[in-house]
Amino acid sequence: MSILLDAVTVTETRRKGDVEPLVRLARDDMSVVDALIVERMQSDVAVIPMLADHIVAAGGKRLRPLLTVAAARAANAPSGMEAPVRLAAAVEFIHTATLLHDDIVDASDLRRGKVAAHLIWGAPSSVLVGDFLFARAFELMVETGQMRALGILAKASSVISEGEVLQLTRAHDLNLDQDTYLQIISAKTAELFAAAAEAGAVGAGADEEVVQALRAYGLNLGIAFQLADDALDYGGASSTLGKNAGDDFNEGKATLPLLLAVARTKGHDDGFWERTINRGERTPDDFKRARELVVGAGAIGATLDVAGDYADRAKAALSPVPDGPWREALELLADFAVSRAT
Amino acid sequence: MSILLDAVTVTETRRKGDVEPLVRLARDDMSVVDALIVERMQSDVAVIPMLADHIVAAGGKRLRPLLTVAAARAANAPSGMEAPVRLAAAVEFIHTATLLHDDIVDASDLRRGKVAAHLIWGAPSSVLVGDFLFARAFELMVETGQMRALGILAKASSVISEGEVLQLTRAHDLNLDQDTYLQIISAKTAELFAAAAEAGAVGAGADEEVVQALRAYGLNLGIAFQLADDALDYGGASSTLGKNAGDDFNEGKATLPLLLAVARTKGHDDGFWERTINRGERTPDDFKRARELVVGAGAIGATLDVAGDYADRAKAALSPVPDGPWREALELLADFAVSRAT
Repeated sequence: MSILLDAVTVTETRRKGDVEPLVRLARDDMSVVDALIVERMQSDVAVIPMLADHIVAAGGKRLRPLLTVAAARAANAPSGMEAPVRLAAAVEFIHTATLLHDDIVDASDLRRGKVAAHLIWGAPSSVLVGDFLFARAFELMVETGQMRALGILAKASSVISEGEVLQLTRAHDLNLDQDTYLQIISAKTAELFAAAAEAGAVGAGADEEVVQALRAYGLNLGIAFQLADDALDYGGASSTLGKNAGDDFNEGKATLPLLLAVARTKGHDDGFWERTINRGERTPDDFKRARELVVGAGAIGATLDVAGDYADRAKAALSPVPDGPWREALELLADFAVSRAT
Repeated sequence: MSILLDAVTVTETRRKGDVEPLVRLARDDMSVVDALIVERMQSDVAVIPMLADHIVAAGGKRLRPLLTVAAARAANAPSGMEAPVRLAAAVEFIHTATLLHDDIVDASDLRRGKVAAHLIWGAPSSVLVGDFLFARAFELMVETGQMRALGILAKASSVISEGEVLQLTRAHDLNLDQDTYLQIISAKTAELFAAAAEAGAVGAGADEEVVQALRAYGLNLGIAFQLADDALDYGGASSTLGKNAGDDFNEGKATLPLLLAVARTKGHDDGFWERTINRGERTPDDFKRARELVVGAGAIGATLDVAGDYADRAKAALSPVPDGPWREALELLADFAVSRAT
């Protein structure tokens, strides 16, 4: 039927990655980015900085602005160069705006380990503060004077929305083909990784070959990350469940682990998938059964193998990028994208 | 207490304006704008152009992109000049995005005479398609290569969100002071009128004095328009009610006609305002009483007098703009902003 469905079900032995070397290298630049983020989310309208701070301060990994900074530095930008740092803050604002809007779209309860903003301040405020942060992102980009970088992030923003709408209209479709699944995660997740890295390289004035290399790195890294996230939602390859495990299943989201499990257990699931995903009739106990079916079908391992392939492509894409600690840290990040789920 | 509350309650005799002369002058440019709008709202994700077409095709007056085109031409731009036309399409996309999001925020049933998009496709799709159109607006702006115009519209976008949030948090406050009311309508409505005109002038390469004149025109025009809209929501100065009359009252929105009526009928309203606005306990019959109180207090006339003052300021601001049919048409538009409500 397809390469993915025939994939081996045992995860290959892969190098254990690490995000810390990159975090350490980028510490000074990222503290400038953080200060800019706090400065630019201010407003005289009090609820805006309150709501923005709730989600921004929760922080997460700041992976996307980190990519912007790292791409610039890997392309030999001097430390603290202004354009990449501003573009990085803009990237985080775009990401935060999409998180605020996604939480409304998905009716999520939690975000970054905290109660979702729309449950505290209401969906209207979350919609409008998302719009505010999105607009502020473009104001930051304008300050760099870098029209090409601005175009890259504007294009990424429209592609992200397209991916989100596509996911919304196909969310509960057990017949989703893997090309469409890859199209969805490329658009909703990987495009911003790609644009974040590309904009950083452009902002640093890198050669075209290096710009394209860093874009390709970001795109493949983003796909690997999302695949690993989707595997982690079913517990990943370990036996311990993360705190948000089960969210995708409980939202009826047709991710790769689920699609593989459905294809591999068809006819042997007593109508379980039809009931829980297609008809959306789920009980709190169903996730346990879903996970057993997903794990039993080898769908976690297969998903992580695909993720590993994309991580390899990300590393290979870096060949035109100058050798050095930044490139090495980016390679370790690609491995980390997958190894955190194993 | 304040100038507004002491204002005369009889509407001054004002020149009857007209929007048609401007529409006729701009017909060719606006047909290029319309074609661009249709072209750029396309997407392979089918629900996006469907939803976008639902609101864009409903059209309305396209007043904001008309301002961009008119400002460029009033500043002597040649017919069909590319930058102003693209900026005009971007302005309409920003406006449409805010309409989609506002309808969710206000839980509106109707928009431009049609069922609101979120009631057909759901709020999640409306949020995401709004984001898509907003991103596409910036893509269009990038194509002009006009960083300054882009900065003007990015800034306007963040100011609009701030105005919307401010309105949201103060919507039901009968003690709203008129400065805050003016701040809200300046931000949520007039800022885009101002930016639309300013960006058109900048896109046409106008002198700084003319750019600032057209910005000031747009800002004052926008305030006049919103004040007249707020008066029309209580029927305006005529005895016939428009089809959306009563919306503001039924949403408990503290607009100037209401604020003036409350101040002028205090102690003689049997707790009507306290019940219907502050406590939000309204019956379908309450609008009739509200309108009687608003009209009886002279609040419609007073609101339109204030609107007329802003229309006069808009016309006066045009003095640095070259004489000619475009400037004359803009003057008639300023009068029309108010006279349509009388």
